[in-house]
Amino acid sequence: MSAGDLLASTIKAIGALDEAAMASARARQGQLTKPAGSLGRLEELSVQLAGVQGKALPNIERKAVIVMAADHGVTAEGVSAYPADVTGQMVANFLAGGAGINVLARQIGARIVIVDMGVAVDIPAHPQLISRKVARGTANMARGPAMTEAQAITALETGIAVLASEADRGLDIVGTGDMGIGNTTASSAICAAFTGKTAAEVTGRGTGVDDAQLKHKAEVIDWALKLNRPDPKRPLSVLAGVGGFEIGGLAGVMLGAGARRIPVVVDGFISGAAAMVATALAPKLSGFLIAGHVSAEAGHRLMLEHLKLRPLVDLGMRLGEGTGAAIGIFLCETATKVLSEMATFGEAGVSERSGPAA
Amino acid sequence: MSAGDLLASTIKAIGALDEAAMASARARQGQLTKPAGSLGRLEELSVQLAGVQGKALPNIERKAVIVMAADHGVTAEGVSAYPADVTGQMVANFLAGGAGINVLARQIGARIVIVDMGVAVDIPAHPQLISRKVARGTANMARGPAMTEAQAITALETGIAVLASEADRGLDIVGTGDMGIGNTTASSAICAAFTGKTAAEVTGRGTGVDDAQLKHKAEVIDWALKLNRPDPKRPLSVLAGVGGFEIGGLAGVMLGAGARRIPVVVDGFISGAAAMVATALAPKLSGFLIAGHVSAEAGHRLMLEHLKLRPLVDLGMRLGEGTGAAIGIFLCETATKVLSEMATFGEAGVSERSGPAA
Repeated sequence: MSAGDLLASTIKAIGALDEAAMASARARQGQLTKPAGSLGRLEELSVQLAGVQGKALPNIERKAVIVMAADHGVTAEGVSAYPADVTGQMVANFLAGGAGINVLARQIGARIVIVDMGVAVDIPAHPQLISRKVARGTANMARGPAMTEAQAITALETGIAVLASEADRGLDIVGTGDMGIGNTTASSAICAAFTGKTAAEVTGRGTGVDDAQLKHKAEVIDWALKLNRPDPKRPLSVLAGVGGFEIGGLAGVMLGAGARRIPVVVDGFISGAAAMVATALAPKLSGFLIAGHVSAEAGHRLMLEHLKLRPLVDLGMRLGEGTGAAIGIFLCETATKVLSEMATFGEAGVSERSGPAA
Repeated sequence: MSAGDLLASTIKAIGALDEAAMASARARQGQLTKPAGSLGRLEELSVQLAGVQGKALPNIERKAVIVMAADHGVTAEGVSAYPADVTGQMVANFLAGGAGINVLARQIGARIVIVDMGVAVDIPAHPQLISRKVARGTANMARGPAMTEAQAITALETGIAVLASEADRGLDIVGTGDMGIGNTTASSAICAAFTGKTAAEVTGRGTGVDDAQLKHKAEVIDWALKLNRPDPKRPLSVLAGVGGFEIGGLAGVMLGAGARRIPVVVDGFISGAAAMVATALAPKLSGFLIAGHVSAEAGHRLMLEHLKLRPLVDLGMRLGEGTGAAIGIFLCETATKVLSEMATFGEAGVSERSGPAA
């Protein structure tokens, strides 16, 4: 296959939600021993998951969080509170099991897949590490495009391939996670490109910059947008102009999952930027996405509105790594268990409502 | 001991949060490999749990949801969408493992304790059932007090005793749950009594009454408040006048947990009414309570404001049974695991922030 073929065939393979499975799940929710609608979002989620998996009783046992890491040339502009070395150091921390996402993934019984999409330093081989460096970090988007369009396609197709290999191992749901010092800068730029907002409206403190740094960060983003002119109608130009390798990879994971009818729980701001790229390439993908949470990062709420995704929880989190996605996976599992395991009125011998429906 | 002694000694035993443990947890949060504060509510929760348990590293392994059931005489006024028989039928459903709370408790690894605090019908003995009927349902509060003050004390002390016996089995956290056709009517009345709001402001659709029934329900509550004159300064008069046996029992569970430094995850509207009674009796209890979620039941938001509790999630749920508490217990466990299991910057060899704190 030549470059772009896998991407094109994957986009083409993304279909519609399975309406029959959804109708069946909805009907069963009405039979379970609880007032209709009384489990709120969990009921809606069970119906969506039925539509994604194409099963009246969707099932979540095999779970993975795919965490993609890469470096960002734009850190040369002083946009982050942490030194760029931290990207590689945190990948080592993931592999050692000491990061936030390790704790959450263990709790929800999900495996973690760490992918080096373009960390600047060499990372020693490790059974849990997939090495797919597109390059040693992106170029500085304040001086030119972050990557070439060929690299953008490589990043997307790498994500599709990683998802495919995870699906082959068995996968009922996937969460997305990221690590990359500088990647809130890239994500804010992507958000501005797709929404038409100014950088100031969609730029937040990331790992924790102060007021002066925040202003500088927004100026860098505005400049990069002027310089690289990403066109929201050409998603590849956005990813190439102001994106990141982990963002492209995560967009590929989402597309690959959609093509295989595997539900995707999208983490926070960086995963949201990836979702913007992915849904711009394949609008039908939206129905396969679930927003795990709304992040405390400024701009994420706006991003979710643009994506038409309602977050499951709001816990003031802004760590990334897939930590918000992990909580979302837990709730998706709850939703499927409720649908499958609760007794119906008939089974339990419980009387149904006496009055008319409200 | 005479009636009321256990209640008085339990209230007296409720102390302050352990400031030293909280300071230690807070300091450790600042050392973990993540930007300070980036796990939001999970960080705050870990600090609160440290304060409750009195341990720098709070620990949640042994979990229980205590579900208390009782009938309500006020159902004679036609305030519910479901027949009163459903209370007993649903207790059987809990014991058979088919209700919503069974599914959620299994998922989070919590045991369920079902307590018959005053169901109208006989419920056959079952290893998971604790039978402590105060009476076969409350009296109709639209005709006189729901119960005597002696019964209110019995309900509270029964809750304290149930919690004590669960604590003896080993208990690191407890969630509260309820079942009782008619109990949103009692809970709305309790909420109105403590907040001074009108019934219309705090009354919702419960299991799903229509507009006409909702208006009628609020009128019944206003009438019951006028008739029984509950005095918010005398919490026992509120519980006796317009409460329920399961509400009194759950208030007792909360008080008992506070006295033993066991964190309590409060479910929705009915558990919230119990928390109002419990914190009115023992204001220091507040720090030991965690609101699992905000329910879709009208009035719950107002109730949480009065209790000064910020809900962890908002998933549009209104089932009761402890389902919202179960999700809260999961998040409490996440919070403690993050605090205990994440690596520090030093341990992981990750560089700390380069800039000044934002």
